[in-house]
Amino acid sequence: MKNLKNDDTKIFALGGLGEIGKNMYCIMYKNEIIIIDAGVTFPQGDLTGIDYVIPDFTFLKQNEKKIKALFITHGHEDHIGAIPFLLQTVNIPAIYTPNQAYGLIKRKLSEKNIQYKNLYIYTEKDKIKFRNITVEFFRTTHSIPDSHGIAITTPNGIIVTTGDFKFDFTPIGPMANLHKMAEIGKRGVSLLLSDSTNALTEGISMSESKVDEALAEIFRRHNGRIIIATFASNIYRIKHIIDTCKRNGRKIAIFGRSMENNIEISIEGGYIKNKDILITPEEANRLPEHKVCLLCTGSQGEPLAALSRIANGTHRQIKLKDDDVVVFSSSAIPGNGPSISRTINKLYLKGVQVYTNTSLSDIHTSGHGNQEELKLMLRLINPKYFMPVHGEHRMLKKHADLAIECDIPKENTFILENGEVLSLYKGKITKSGTVQASDVYVDGNRIGDISNAVMKDRKIMASDGIVVVIANVDTIHSKLLGTPNIITRGFILVNYNFELLKQLEEIAKKAINLKLKDKINYTEIKQEIISQLTPYIYDKTGRKPIILPVIMNIKNGY
Amino acid sequence: MKNLKNDDTKIFALGGLGEIGKNMYCIMYKNEIIIIDAGVTFPQGDLTGIDYVIPDFTFLKQNEKKIKALFITHGHEDHIGAIPFLLQTVNIPAIYTPNQAYGLIKRKLSEKNIQYKNLYIYTEKDKIKFRNITVEFFRTTHSIPDSHGIAITTPNGIIVTTGDFKFDFTPIGPMANLHKMAEIGKRGVSLLLSDSTNALTEGISMSESKVDEALAEIFRRHNGRIIIATFASNIYRIKHIIDTCKRNGRKIAIFGRSMENNIEISIEGGYIKNKDILITPEEANRLPEHKVCLLCTGSQGEPLAALSRIANGTHRQIKLKDDDVVVFSSSAIPGNGPSISRTINKLYLKGVQVYTNTSLSDIHTSGHGNQEELKLMLRLINPKYFMPVHGEHRMLKKHADLAIECDIPKENTFILENGEVLSLYKGKITKSGTVQASDVYVDGNRIGDISNAVMKDRKIMASDGIVVVIANVDTIHSKLLGTPNIITRGFILVNYNFELLKQLEEIAKKAINLKLKDKINYTEIKQEIISQLTPYIYDKTGRKPIILPVIMNIKNGY
Repeated sequence: MKNLKNDDTKIFALGGLGEIGKNMYCIMYKNEIIIIDAGVTFPQGDLTGIDYVIPDFTFLKQNEKKIKALFITHGHEDHIGAIPFLLQTVNIPAIYTPNQAYGLIKRKLSEKNIQYKNLYIYTEKDKIKFRNITVEFFRTTHSIPDSHGIAITTPNGIIVTTGDFKFDFTPIGPMANLHKMAEIGKRGVSLLLSDSTNALTEGISMSESKVDEALAEIFRRHNGRIIIATFASNIYRIKHIIDTCKRNGRKIAIFGRSMENNIEISIEGGYIKNKDILITPEEANRLPEHKVCLLCTGSQGEPLAALSRIANGTHRQIKLKDDDVVVFSSSAIPGNGPSISRTINKLYLKGVQVYTNTSLSDIHTSGHGNQEELKLMLRLINPKYFMPVHGEHRMLKKHADLAIECDIPKENTFILENGEVLSLYKGKITKSGTVQASDVYVDGNRIGDISNAVMKDRKIMASDGIVVVIANVDTIHSKLLGTPNIITRGFILVNYNFELLKQLEEIAKKAINLKLKDKINYTEIKQEIISQLTPYIYDKTGRKPIILPVIMNIKNGY
Repeated sequence: MKNLKNDDTKIFALGGLGEIGKNMYCIMYKNEIIIIDAGVTFPQGDLTGIDYVIPDFTFLKQNEKKIKALFITHGHEDHIGAIPFLLQTVNIPAIYTPNQAYGLIKRKLSEKNIQYKNLYIYTEKDKIKFRNITVEFFRTTHSIPDSHGIAITTPNGIIVTTGDFKFDFTPIGPMANLHKMAEIGKRGVSLLLSDSTNALTEGISMSESKVDEALAEIFRRHNGRIIIATFASNIYRIKHIIDTCKRNGRKIAIFGRSMENNIEISIEGGYIKNKDILITPEEANRLPEHKVCLLCTGSQGEPLAALSRIANGTHRQIKLKDDDVVVFSSSAIPGNGPSISRTINKLYLKGVQVYTNTSLSDIHTSGHGNQEELKLMLRLINPKYFMPVHGEHRMLKKHADLAIECDIPKENTFILENGEVLSLYKGKITKSGTVQASDVYVDGNRIGDISNAVMKDRKIMASDGIVVVIANVDTIHSKLLGTPNIITRGFILVNYNFELLKQLEEIAKKAINLKLKDKINYTEIKQEIISQLTPYIYDKTGRKPIILPVIMNIKNGY
């Protein structure tokens, strides 16, 4: 990062640009750093064997003393999932979070046995002041309660980040605070960072209330068991489904760990009521069919999720019956189409009726705003500069185009990559170098919280598996710390192949040392590791696993 | 109107409820009356022979001294068309109007030789203060420049009326002032009156900018003459078309008096530029086809409009050619479907290509907001009470439903009829009687500005014509003033039937006197006129014309 000025405000993403996942945005002014969100990505496709991808904390570790606080916009995994890893690596003096996310984070930390005393709940009325930076909040609407946008006032101007949002004028929970957005916009905002997830979709997203009506219709129409799959993270949807069961005299059994967790926390937080109708799978099997609803994970066709096992006929407790109705209250995450289709085909083969958001569009709506909603946010906040976030590149690009349509000069829009830095100085923004922001891969064993990880790997890993090489590098002295650590999934049975792994470690070590120079070029080192390991592994095993080198800077001498 | 309290604020419509047209809303506090808009309706269907329908000015005449000013939201006929009639009947101390409407009103008054010195232009920044009432403005987006919403602060609370609006985030002209709407909303609004035109349409209306793109595409695609029909009132659309011609090297000839008037005023006001490319029909005939665009009235299939005559082959200057392209940049006003279809069929028979908003949806967008836009307005203004206006009954009803979805209690929504009065007292609203607000019919002869009225009547009148009975009644003394005046259209040749008309007048006079009591029941009087005239007319002529009794209270003794 260039440091021509030291009284500018720097803004950059450590995650969230060019991807939907691992959101982490930093605002820095002099000796103060504010972090917004700390999310994970769940790897897909060629990253099986990896449990999470998290942001690169190198910059934060290097600037640890400047960090004032982490602010959380809402409780989804791509915004809070990396908190345990962050706390294990970097000292974070305080985390401010809205109420629903508070419950989720507390559980996450306790599951990982992390003691952390400085987790605070904020509400929209709060204003957190640091020496030079002031942080404020405005309520938005999203698929989880208590989602917020954040306004950060620095001596060089105001930066607003929306968090995830849609404009739902008839929401299930409280309304977005349009008036506060307008009020902040009126003050004069220098830079807006806004959610680009649905930037490619025209019009306005359907209100969550419409889903309520569609669900009610399905409940009216059918007398068999109703089996519903949805996202465990969509708390409002789950609330709908439970409320609809209550109204229709059905009890509901929950399947899937993440679903159960979210429901428990939402009941504790008062977001979900009617817990009296929750029953066990055994009770569900005893009740007449028209009195039962099964709510499960597996809307994406995940092979081990409850719905897939029910469709396969391999679920321990639930066997399909002829007049069962299966509802996918969800949409397909890109890439999951084939596995969802497989599940649907199996369900049809068993003769049950299936509703999806293609057969009945009102059965799902996105938690993210479409183009007209993104324009409304742009018009309300009315920023001088614009940086689309939370999206793949084409979404960021389209979002920037929308901003240009909304009168933001093209040269004032910034389509960036993770690590690229904007410098805001007296209301004017220029690009200003980069900080390190590569993907960091985490596997279950290293953190130790993933149950069934081995079995999961075995089932979903493609033919040749994956080899991850993790090396710790002291960036100041350009020195490799210890021996690289090799973790594999779906590649070989570790217990029978200690020797091979030992050799892979040695080769990786040599490869790294060969390329370590004063100025560390991470790409070059990674390339070297891959070029050396690939032929060796093929020679010894006849396999061509994916090789993922991860260079980390943990506890080196700064 | 009940007068239990005399320090409440009264709100009522003299036109605009249960109809799209003749908008006129009144706010009264003690000795101050503020009028919003004074529009006409162009009669359709069974009202041929009548040139305009205007609001009933009885109440205003009776309370003439209290009137402080008339405020105009924008320059469309259904909001300004009744101004000449109002000024001829009632003393209006001042009219405040936005800039574009100012030009239209000035021309209207000068055409009718009405001298009026107190016409003032307001802008969004102005605040007009009376003794107890303050009036403010906020810019909206609509199909004509300078449309505004109006906020009226009275000692009992704030009343906001939206005027006509959509939320176009990428408008052709200036953006709506979301921030001022939010700011007014934040102050606490007692009552919102909002445009219900598109309350039955889901989602969000298309931006006017999209029409620009669709037009550009048609210009790219075709080398023949391009003939475009649109609403003369849609200034932004006309601006598009002229700008698109300019960009594509085409000259443009204008057909239709209303179109020419609006363009002239918009050029004077600076809303439309590029007047250098306007040409006469003769010049259009001399230029090569790919250099010519013809812009004309007749998008509704009006028999005498330019487009209809072109389609019929009866236009004096323009004959269709094989590679002409005709574009309907418009939608069908309910009821006009058949006449539009007739025009389109004739065009197809002549072998020209036709674009309509059903064949190419982006070729037209409404100037009124759809459901999500209405909800956004409700959320921004956030009123305690809601009164849908500017719509037929089913639109008002649906709009009230939308308000209820947006958390306004059902009992706080008021679906009213013209003349029904709301009483706002210390922030609380109750229904409070009625004022007189019947339809008042105006025919061209009475005002004398309608050219070709007889021919128009002859052409469009249905089989039996219409008989209008206008009677002036002194409401204080319950006395008929003079003899009722009978005006007919499409019924009989007036010049040959003086005797019959004289007899009809006498019958009407008797009918009225029969029913005139201390407390005048207008419905009863009108019924009596109809029951007495119908058999008599049928007996004498074998015809059953529509009989329209109009009871007026002009210059009686108050």
